[in-house]
Amino acid sequence: MLNRESPEAARPETASTSNNRQRFLSACRCQAVDRPPVWLMRQAGRVLPEYRALKEKHSFLELVRTPELAAEVTLQPIRRFDFDAAIIFSDILVVPEALGQPYEFQEGGGIIMEPLRTAAEIDQLDGSAVGERLAYVPKALRLVKEALGGRTALIGFAGAPWTLANFMIEGGGAREYAKAKGLFHQDRALFDHLLEKLTVTVAEYLQMQIDAGVDAVQLFDSLGGILPDHHFVEGSGRWMAQIVKLLKGQVPVIVFSRGTHGNWNELVETGAQIVGVDWTVRLSEVRARLPEDVGVQGNLDPFLLLTTPELVAAETRRLLKDMRGSRGHILNLGHGVPPGAKLENVASLVNSVKSFA
Amino acid sequence: MLNRESPEAARPETASTSNNRQRFLSACRCQAVDRPPVWLMRQAGRVLPEYRALKEKHSFLELVRTPELAAEVTLQPIRRFDFDAAIIFSDILVVPEALGQPYEFQEGGGIIMEPLRTAAEIDQLDGSAVGERLAYVPKALRLVKEALGGRTALIGFAGAPWTLANFMIEGGGAREYAKAKGLFHQDRALFDHLLEKLTVTVAEYLQMQIDAGVDAVQLFDSLGGILPDHHFVEGSGRWMAQIVKLLKGQVPVIVFSRGTHGNWNELVETGAQIVGVDWTVRLSEVRARLPEDVGVQGNLDPFLLLTTPELVAAETRRLLKDMRGSRGHILNLGHGVPPGAKLENVASLVNSVKSFA
Repeated sequence: MLNRESPEAARPETASTSNNRQRFLSACRCQAVDRPPVWLMRQAGRVLPEYRALKEKHSFLELVRTPELAAEVTLQPIRRFDFDAAIIFSDILVVPEALGQPYEFQEGGGIIMEPLRTAAEIDQLDGSAVGERLAYVPKALRLVKEALGGRTALIGFAGAPWTLANFMIEGGGAREYAKAKGLFHQDRALFDHLLEKLTVTVAEYLQMQIDAGVDAVQLFDSLGGILPDHHFVEGSGRWMAQIVKLLKGQVPVIVFSRGTHGNWNELVETGAQIVGVDWTVRLSEVRARLPEDVGVQGNLDPFLLLTTPELVAAETRRLLKDMRGSRGHILNLGHGVPPGAKLENVASLVNSVKSFA
Repeated sequence: MLNRESPEAARPETASTSNNRQRFLSACRCQAVDRPPVWLMRQAGRVLPEYRALKEKHSFLELVRTPELAAEVTLQPIRRFDFDAAIIFSDILVVPEALGQPYEFQEGGGIIMEPLRTAAEIDQLDGSAVGERLAYVPKALRLVKEALGGRTALIGFAGAPWTLANFMIEGGGAREYAKAKGLFHQDRALFDHLLEKLTVTVAEYLQMQIDAGVDAVQLFDSLGGILPDHHFVEGSGRWMAQIVKLLKGQVPVIVFSRGTHGNWNELVETGAQIVGVDWTVRLSEVRARLPEDVGVQGNLDPFLLLTTPELVAAETRRLLKDMRGSRGHILNLGHGVPPGAKLENVASLVNSVKSFA
């Protein structure tokens, strides 16, 4: 594939990597770095004792919706592990909620959410108050930004429209996600109507986060891989591409569309600077298939965090060696930090990256 | 990649395709056929009213364990749809059961199974009575074979050792399969001990099926894709390769290892004649990556069976066109027939294949 920009423009050799934030931003631009930047999807949360302590006093949604608490939870993993990037502590379902479809968490796991059932219900989703309803997010981001003081990158995020549509139509998580596919095939106009609403709202929400100072944004398309390869663009890719376009290159965009192994070209065509990769493929092979100015993020098996520091160190070094010489690599897991992850394994992962020569 | 055999040996141009069985066997050998053979994973079962009628009188396990009933259920989809191949009605968990780890089905879905917890429990798994305990399977196969009268191919199957190990250690299905991976990383000797037992038992069980007259066997490795690409061979691939070797080329072997998109070479190295492919990748691209004498099976989105006959026909024709000119294609879904599948959609799929010119 061809580069989007000339190699000269994309790769000044003098990239500074003097702090975590600059290292992360250089990697987003596929510029030379001293070592790959590292952060972990779901790095804030129950793996940290300081989070579990807060969680005894506050519900998950209180933590998300209270700017001071969300900022605190966002900063906890940075204090402990000095990651190169912080990601705002939030949830992809805040967008459906802001559109008028509330959700709750059950104790013991699982989401309770009244599913979207009719065209009228889709029509009633109202994006006009999103700025107001999600105002707690930029507030939290400004607190985090100030606390980070430019030393650590700050990532904003949202769910991808396809993934959000699945949760909204199923009414939460499902064993088999069938209903959004059903709408896609049986009433394309209504599907498009819903996805357009989500696209505009997600773009507005990410713009709010950019205005609050995030250095990059990530689109989480956890359910991208349930689409056959030849339906990916119409079901998910084109909506993400619209969002990237609406954001006009203000900050790098990371697109993580899990399980879409037949759609590397289509992921590049979203216009994202970085493509997230799950743990089932060799990252250097994916890297080689992408244009030189598009980076990759990933892809350690999240399960490693349940094993031992020695194994985590060995596997992290294996990945770093496999990617040696490749620019544009942000080291991460291939999915979020899993339940049961051990603190010493997160430490081992981070130390292995930082000590890699 | 190079062919395993010379093209002359692999491809007589005079392959007869005068009946369904011969068409299926020719496709398994990557020989020329008039059209791709078609069968569906989980083609026998609740999509058929005649199955649901039987199910009102008998439990799932009664149907599996009673040769006359298992034969009847195996034949039902052949009578209705004239598939090119029948697959014995059974379950992958009959192997753990024969080794001494019983299971039950809960009404409303889900398996109940006492998990393997200790080295002693793994040690106690006893393969010596497998032939006796699973004798109902060859009995059922002989009844089916006789009823098919050589007009339809007959497929035997077993779960792959890796997939079986996951179910056995979790004690059934799990939201995240972690425990077999844990054993793999934390006690490789014990992991290998379990997988060796499973490998020998699966090979013996498939040999029983070959002796009863099946035309091909399929290894179902539904959980192959939870392994990182660089652990696939040690976790799953090498055990399947041992089974293929133990079966000594008596019948074609189909290996379906779902979600292993980073391991096409390793799947070929199992020695299988046919590699199953899920619905998330373009089948012609996978076909192009494999040696010419290894075929592919797949890969329609199972979800299509919940939509409309028109859509199923269009998508089936799209796949057939994409694969036109490619030898060694067995048309199937990319996974089993899903709950909620409609009979008229199965009919549309089969008719679309049979009428494709």
